Amino acid sequence: MRENLFQIMAKELKNLTKRSDNYSQWYNELVVKADLAEQSAVRGCMVIKPYGYAIWEKMQHQLDEMFKATGVQNAYFPLLIPKSFLCREAEHVEGFAKECAVVTHYRLKNDPEGTGVIVDPEARLEEELIVRPTSETIIWGTYKNWIHSYRDLPLLINQWANVMRWEMRTRMFLRTSEFLWQEGHCAHATAEESEARTVEMINVYADFAQKYMAMPVTIGVKSPNERFAGALNTYSIEAMMQDGKALQAGTSHNLGQNFAKAFDVTFMNKENKPEYVWANSWGVSTRLMGALIMTHSDDNGLVLPPKLAPIQVVIIPIYKNEEGLKEISEKVLPLVDELKKKGISVKYDDADNRRPGFKFADYELKGVPVRLALGQRDLENGTVELMRRDTLEKETLPIEGISDKIEEILEDIQDNLFKKALERREARTIEVDTYDEFKKKIEEGVFIMAHWDGTPETEEKIKEETKATIRCIPLEGDKTPGVCMVTGKPSAQRVIFARAY
Amino acid sequence: MRENLFQIMAKELKNLTKRSDNYSQWYNELVVKADLAEQSAVRGCMVIKPYGYAIWEKMQHQLDEMFKATGVQNAYFPLLIPKSFLCREAEHVEGFAKECAVVTHYRLKNDPEGTGVIVDPEARLEEELIVRPTSETIIWGTYKNWIHSYRDLPLLINQWANVMRWEMRTRMFLRTSEFLWQEGHCAHATAEESEARTVEMINVYADFAQKYMAMPVTIGVKSPNERFAGALNTYSIEAMMQDGKALQAGTSHNLGQNFAKAFDVTFMNKENKPEYVWANSWGVSTRLMGALIMTHSDDNGLVLPPKLAPIQVVIIPIYKNEEGLKEISEKVLPLVDELKKKGISVKYDDADNRRPGFKFADYELKGVPVRLALGQRDLENGTVELMRRDTLEKETLPIEGISDKIEEILEDIQDNLFKKALERREARTIEVDTYDEFKKKIEEGVFIMAHWDGTPETEEKIKEETKATIRCIPLEGDKTPGVCMVTGKPSAQRVIFARAY
Repeated sequence: MRENLFQIMAKELKNLTKRSDNYSQWYNELVVKADLAEQSAVRGCMVIKPYGYAIWEKMQHQLDEMFKATGVQNAYFPLLIPKSFLCREAEHVEGFAKECAVVTHYRLKNDPEGTGVIVDPEARLEEELIVRPTSETIIWGTYKNWIHSYRDLPLLINQWANVMRWEMRTRMFLRTSEFLWQEGHCAHATAEESEARTVEMINVYADFAQKYMAMPVTIGVKSPNERFAGALNTYSIEAMMQDGKALQAGTSHNLGQNFAKAFDVTFMNKENKPEYVWANSWGVSTRLMGALIMTHSDDNGLVLPPKLAPIQVVIIPIYKNEEGLKEISEKVLPLVDELKKKGISVKYDDADNRRPGFKFADYELKGVPVRLALGQRDLENGTVELMRRDTLEKETLPIEGISDKIEEILEDIQDNLFKKALERREARTIEVDTYDEFKKKIEEGVFIMAHWDGTPETEEKIKEETKATIRCIPLEGDKTPGVCMVTGKPSAQRVIFARAY
Repeated sequence: MRENLFQIMAKELKNLTKRSDNYSQWYNELVVKADLAEQSAVRGCMVIKPYGYAIWEKMQHQLDEMFKATGVQNAYFPLLIPKSFLCREAEHVEGFAKECAVVTHYRLKNDPEGTGVIVDPEARLEEELIVRPTSETIIWGTYKNWIHSYRDLPLLINQWANVMRWEMRTRMFLRTSEFLWQEGHCAHATAEESEARTVEMINVYADFAQKYMAMPVTIGVKSPNERFAGALNTYSIEAMMQDGKALQAGTSHNLGQNFAKAFDVTFMNKENKPEYVWANSWGVSTRLMGALIMTHSDDNGLVLPPKLAPIQVVIIPIYKNEEGLKEISEKVLPLVDELKKKGISVKYDDADNRRPGFKFADYELKGVPVRLALGQRDLENGTVELMRRDTLEKETLPIEGISDKIEEILEDIQDNLFKKALERREARTIEVDTYDEFKKKIEEGVFIMAHWDGTPETEEKIKEETKATIRCIPLEGDKTPGVCMVTGKPSAQRVIFARAY
């Protein structure tokens, strides 16, 4: 009976909708089954479970190190923003003040007519406070006191925080009302320096995405329709998911002097003349988790690039009795030490309340890059069975020297995942020159490189008719001018169209 | 003129109220002058500035490592808690639902009668949401779905998060409306296991306080008056500040089955019978920053224990011209590398827009443990001037072998700070046997070990008449019974009374 239960559980684990059947359902199921996150009792907010949070922590640590290497320091600003602050920058309030959580009272009291508590009407705030949807306003309100002279610049600050946007339709990691993120807010003495920092940070994000997430991205400029509310210019990194849809994975905004003007932040320049400060802001969020999942995972579950996997190697003993386990452990424990010394995170799962078959399915589902299995026959032969998660290929190898081999394989998996994702993107990126063909092709789940006349009206029309948007105007690649596929007007270069998350 | 400005700035930096003149003002000024934090535009909320946040980050990393070493994993739960969740546990709601930030609406709209935005009355939430003052309720609401069998236990989870309590009187780091903290929430199969974990975590906090913060603490049990709302028992670590007042630096609560009952969280035990889960929770917050500042700092500014100092060693060149700086740098840069290799964080401050005297004052104010200064004569003699921040002692030492010497001195500073704080606590802890003497002595700023009859009434009377509270019933030390100094009734052991932050 116990055996049956394990088989049922193992089957249940694997009982994941196939991507080809329903990509969206596959994603939602995978997030829950791989123990990454789940819906909470609060509308649109998720609980990030320990395994999911461990991946996010690895992302955080890496990004934090990369930010600090460019001179950025961390700080922390208040969660709540006075309503009047949000209103200072005209475009910003249009973009952010609308769907947000509003704190109106600061006390509850016992319900005189019942058993619960009610909002105390006497504890109404004079001015409502908004749970930050982003922190430009409170931060620039603070910078006013920090910046006086060109000697105070540049100011390079980042905050790791939670933010809240009252989203109507939510999906775990991709779009949730509350999410975790970092937001960098830099202040500079010149427009050129601020623009250079804006570009520097989008390049940091691209580096992180490609080297750590093994996710190819295109760096580009957003069209005015998709720009951050209050920015002169928004750069983004865009990635292709397995269904051919685009995901905006990070943004960096050149804010010009808009926020400095809104909050009256000036500095004395080298000529001793007052000047408004130049600003940029840049952020990535737990949305990266969604991108990571959708870039690499398969019908068996999660596939994690080794550089972000909380467990890089799992070792599973296959044994009949206590004595058998003891013999295997004698062989395995020194190997565990050896791997740890190489900085490889390894788990030896000798728990006796789950059968090997169940464990295999579970670690596959959780995307552990390398699995070793050791049984009685391996002990006799001095071998070990190694499976790599990216290809699901199994190999029987000598246990002698296996730790060097594992190191190589982890690097190979990291490279292979990037290569596969890049090949997919290249295979599914096409050039289109007529709007008719565009309408047909966009249904296939592709990135379309097409000419556009540069107007918001044309972009809006295309969006309405095809649900595709301009993901970005790529910084690199083909810069040949042409004519807009819709209006026939001149176009400076091809831009990327896609349907997007 | 420039010279004058530097002198004025250096003087201004040092112009810190003396502790003996006004301890409270000294603290408030120091927090701002040392660039740790400042008041924000939002009532009771502070901005943690980069230098202050860097210290908090060091605390976080160390604590996180210590938690994980005991098997704890991190996760993340929602910021907002439905009002009905708070009401589930009767004592808890009494303690926490009263002074809190309440979200009642989810949208703003343009003011039809003005230029700003107003709360959209149509976007009223059906049920109000509370910005978490602590997360027991939302977490135990979630655990209901995670815990089914004894095999799911123990569940050892921690969250790093911001929380909010609408405090009436706030002081930076010590008591702010929003603060950063970690909250651990563990679930166990037995009362014994949960109690053991509660005690384990208060010991982790004590270890951290003593080994890293160099702050001696007493571990004890809170009296019922001071217990966490909803707990059977609260353990705390209590530290003595330089003014003889007590600061509660961390707490660990045995919650019994209270939250499991409130949220109906049961598990099948080994006998296959349903049973309520046993809970504990434990937390420390940015309040530790206040404790750190008030334990070691002096009239010249911050004094940081080396293990938590963002900059452990600062090197300041003293030179007349470019050529002189170049010669010094040639000597210093290899030393910087050498120190970094030892894992010592070092800053070589060769900025030319601040004079050495200003730099000296600034790094003293910021509590950098070791300062090296190198001038022309040092170059000739192969020496360097070393000042240690804890004693302000200066020594001229051979530059040869200085990195080993620095390593020793850093350890010595760490030990010395702990020793000094311990000596102070011992000198200012007294035994008192009559209430009259108690009333006199408590004015002197001391910890008083006195007998108490164990009733809330007596504790309340003492608090009203002397502003002193029972900080804790110490776990270790003298356990001799006696009679209550107020009522003459029997007392099991002496407890610690003090005025507290």
